[in-house]
Amino acid sequence: MTSTDGGRSSALGRRAVERRLGLVTDLYELTMAASYHRLGMHDRATFSLFVRKLPAHRSFLVAAGLEDALARLERLGFDDEGIDYLVTTGHVRPEEADALARVRFTGDVRAVREGRVVFPGEPLVEVDAPIIEAQLAESLILNAIHYPTLVATKAARCVAVAGGRPLVDFGLRRTPGIDASVDVARACWLAGFASTSNVHAARRLGIPASGTVAHAFIEAMPDERAAFEAWARTTVGPLTLLVDTYDTLSGTRRAIELARRLRGEGRALASLRLDSGDLEALSRAVRQLLDDAGLRDVRIFASGGLDEYAIDRLVRARAPIDGFGVGTRVGMSADAPVLDMAYKIVAYAGRPCLKLSAGKATIVGPKQVWRRRDSGGRLVADRIAALDEPAPTSGDWEPLLEPVVSDGRALRRPRLAELRSAHAAEVARLPAELRAIAPDEPRATYAVSISRVLAERHRAAVRETRRREGLEPRRDGQAS
Amino acid sequence: MTSTDGGRSSALGRRAVERRLGLVTDLYELTMAASYHRLGMHDRATFSLFVRKLPAHRSFLVAAGLEDALARLERLGFDDEGIDYLVTTGHVRPEEADALARVRFTGDVRAVREGRVVFPGEPLVEVDAPIIEAQLAESLILNAIHYPTLVATKAARCVAVAGGRPLVDFGLRRTPGIDASVDVARACWLAGFASTSNVHAARRLGIPASGTVAHAFIEAMPDERAAFEAWARTTVGPLTLLVDTYDTLSGTRRAIELARRLRGEGRALASLRLDSGDLEALSRAVRQLLDDAGLRDVRIFASGGLDEYAIDRLVRARAPIDGFGVGTRVGMSADAPVLDMAYKIVAYAGRPCLKLSAGKATIVGPKQVWRRRDSGGRLVADRIAALDEPAPTSGDWEPLLEPVVSDGRALRRPRLAELRSAHAAEVARLPAELRAIAPDEPRATYAVSISRVLAERHRAAVRETRRREGLEPRRDGQAS
Repeated sequence: MTSTDGGRSSALGRRAVERRLGLVTDLYELTMAASYHRLGMHDRATFSLFVRKLPAHRSFLVAAGLEDALARLERLGFDDEGIDYLVTTGHVRPEEADALARVRFTGDVRAVREGRVVFPGEPLVEVDAPIIEAQLAESLILNAIHYPTLVATKAARCVAVAGGRPLVDFGLRRTPGIDASVDVARACWLAGFASTSNVHAARRLGIPASGTVAHAFIEAMPDERAAFEAWARTTVGPLTLLVDTYDTLSGTRRAIELARRLRGEGRALASLRLDSGDLEALSRAVRQLLDDAGLRDVRIFASGGLDEYAIDRLVRARAPIDGFGVGTRVGMSADAPVLDMAYKIVAYAGRPCLKLSAGKATIVGPKQVWRRRDSGGRLVADRIAALDEPAPTSGDWEPLLEPVVSDGRALRRPRLAELRSAHAAEVARLPAELRAIAPDEPRATYAVSISRVLAERHRAAVRETRRREGLEPRRDGQAS
Repeated sequence: MTSTDGGRSSALGRRAVERRLGLVTDLYELTMAASYHRLGMHDRATFSLFVRKLPAHRSFLVAAGLEDALARLERLGFDDEGIDYLVTTGHVRPEEADALARVRFTGDVRAVREGRVVFPGEPLVEVDAPIIEAQLAESLILNAIHYPTLVATKAARCVAVAGGRPLVDFGLRRTPGIDASVDVARACWLAGFASTSNVHAARRLGIPASGTVAHAFIEAMPDERAAFEAWARTTVGPLTLLVDTYDTLSGTRRAIELARRLRGEGRALASLRLDSGDLEALSRAVRQLLDDAGLRDVRIFASGGLDEYAIDRLVRARAPIDGFGVGTRVGMSADAPVLDMAYKIVAYAGRPCLKLSAGKATIVGPKQVWRRRDSGGRLVADRIAALDEPAPTSGDWEPLLEPVVSDGRALRRPRLAELRSAHAAEVARLPAELRAIAPDEPRATYAVSISRVLAERHRAAVRETRRREGLEPRRDGQAS
């Protein structure tokens, strides 16, 4: 397998590096794999990765993390030291350890492209491989996709309400580690952010880094006036001043004095940053001071605990803010930090698999998701169908899952820039009510149906399973 | 610097490895560092890392992440490729890049031990170093400490309500990346969890891995009875059966049949796992079936979206559950996914630094936190004092911050096992109301005061700053 987005692969958080990721798993995956081997079970299984239901405050999800998931599949397997560990700890018998030592991912993967909008029940990824490989991939793949999908979704909501104003990823300092900070920068970029403050991520991803100046710089100087002077004299690139260290309006007046002097030297003040207080009121007051000073070109940039709700309020209030720095709350998807995302077996050896557990039932078999657009190109409905069903005939339907790995070999995938453009185009075609930010209202829903063929196949499998397991047929006639 | 917890350092999430972490920062840290250099500012600064306020539903925090933070400080600086990147992108001028290329961390660090209980306003870490180094450390250190502190705090709450029942970290599949999964396993272990399902983390940290069996194994078999047989016949270690794939009580009856047969062969069924449905009602029904079958020794283990609230309810209801698997909600600290944690300059060249920004004011100068115990050893109050103040004299006071790095060299730190024991002992000495889980009630608060010396010094600095910056004295007489 090779990656078309390889530039981002870099490990900085920890020191030693292992080639193979097989131990990055829940113990039961290894012990089950050992048992499958002992039982001679080498048939292919299909596992489906999907989200069971939307969190509160979300009306759609943005798929992300596939690139990393596939890079990990490429590294499925075990180093000698890993095998030794499993044997010496007694988790696996030596004879099964030998079998594990030979594991590589040789299967097929179909997936939804990163940046696409997805809904509950729709597979984001389907893995079809010998059951040991498909089982061992579970924790690796879920771990790769859960967090980026969460963050890309949150970031897309920020972009949706920002009305074209540039957003900058400020997440690094409070993301869950260094790799997570790259995931955040990437997810935000995919969702349409303009840049990241995270230099490591910018370099890895080949995206723009941007920055302003911090309070520490102001505080370390004899006074604010001297600090502004020092910053203007020494920094490179467009000049931004941070004006809220002591008093926002007083700082703004000092910035204006400096801007006037700099203008005499042919240099411009580019922007002011506000990082605290009532951003709506302060941005108006600051704008007024700037305009009165003839500094209409100086932009106002705001940061400080922002998320889509805060941005939405500021934009709706027509606060004169030209760009936003967004960090912590996006990096932890603070209002919806968890997705009910699962990776479930749906077929083994051609036989449908399902569970009936309360609230966690799965729908059998490999699937395709079909997305319908109306004549204006707008998204109108999705249909989850069995993979072997023909394409729907009436209307303009597009399949969401496409092959990304075949016989263990990665297929060529689009570059990040292309995914980013496609994401923007798709979000623009979503029903407007799905893009709206409404924390307290019931969220809008999008029509996702299950094809008649799949529904009937599933009902038959449920009946057969209940019969086989000696359970009463369900009285309510539901599928599960 | 050397690490006493080095076993955990391993990078698996990404491929290439760089020695130096200087680019893992927000761009402004680099441009400020370049400006400090150009301005000839090489005096020492003190930066203080602290949490401004508790999130809702938290009455204390558990410090964590220090080990990783210090390992990162050791790697502060820039590789040649990193310097090239900064120059070619125009972020830094070549002459300042030369200065950056020479950066290493040569300063001092004082910190609160991991696993200790901390409160808002109390520094968890104080860095005293030439300002360029201390500034460049900001994003690296915050990033290292924010997330583990969040997770250790959540995990400690789970342990507090579990009444001694073992908890297992099931977080891997939905943590924000692989390194984050190790952070979670470590934070959970520190907080008193019994084991982790994460094999990679268990190996890195030298802690126990444990596991059960998944639904996929059951579903891949011809039927549940065959699956239980197959699992019993092939797995190593204590036998756990997962009984909720199709119907929990039916599954339990099948497990009992098998247990009886196994007993004839001298083998025991160790436990049943419940992963869905009404865990309280099901655990009672399953316990009854087991007891009626004379299988009183078979334990019941529960999992599925659990957190401290769910565990608390089950324990209070006396549900017969002997252990819990806890994953996603702890790994994202789902009910409080963000800490208002900051790293702020408090002194430069011996001069106090502060900002007055609304809601973000800082208290000047290097500090010590003193913790008082009563005669029974219980924690009664903390006092934040200036570092140069003498120890409080009346009562039993202990300083929380201790030197961990001196002149850039790491001092010997306690091992994880020792931190874990100390954590358990400290939590046991907390006022009981602080350990209580009460989602809807106002949380209990612990007495944290600021010493008179520090308060007076801070007020004087505020007065001096306001005078210097030409701001009116505050009328409300507050410090900031």
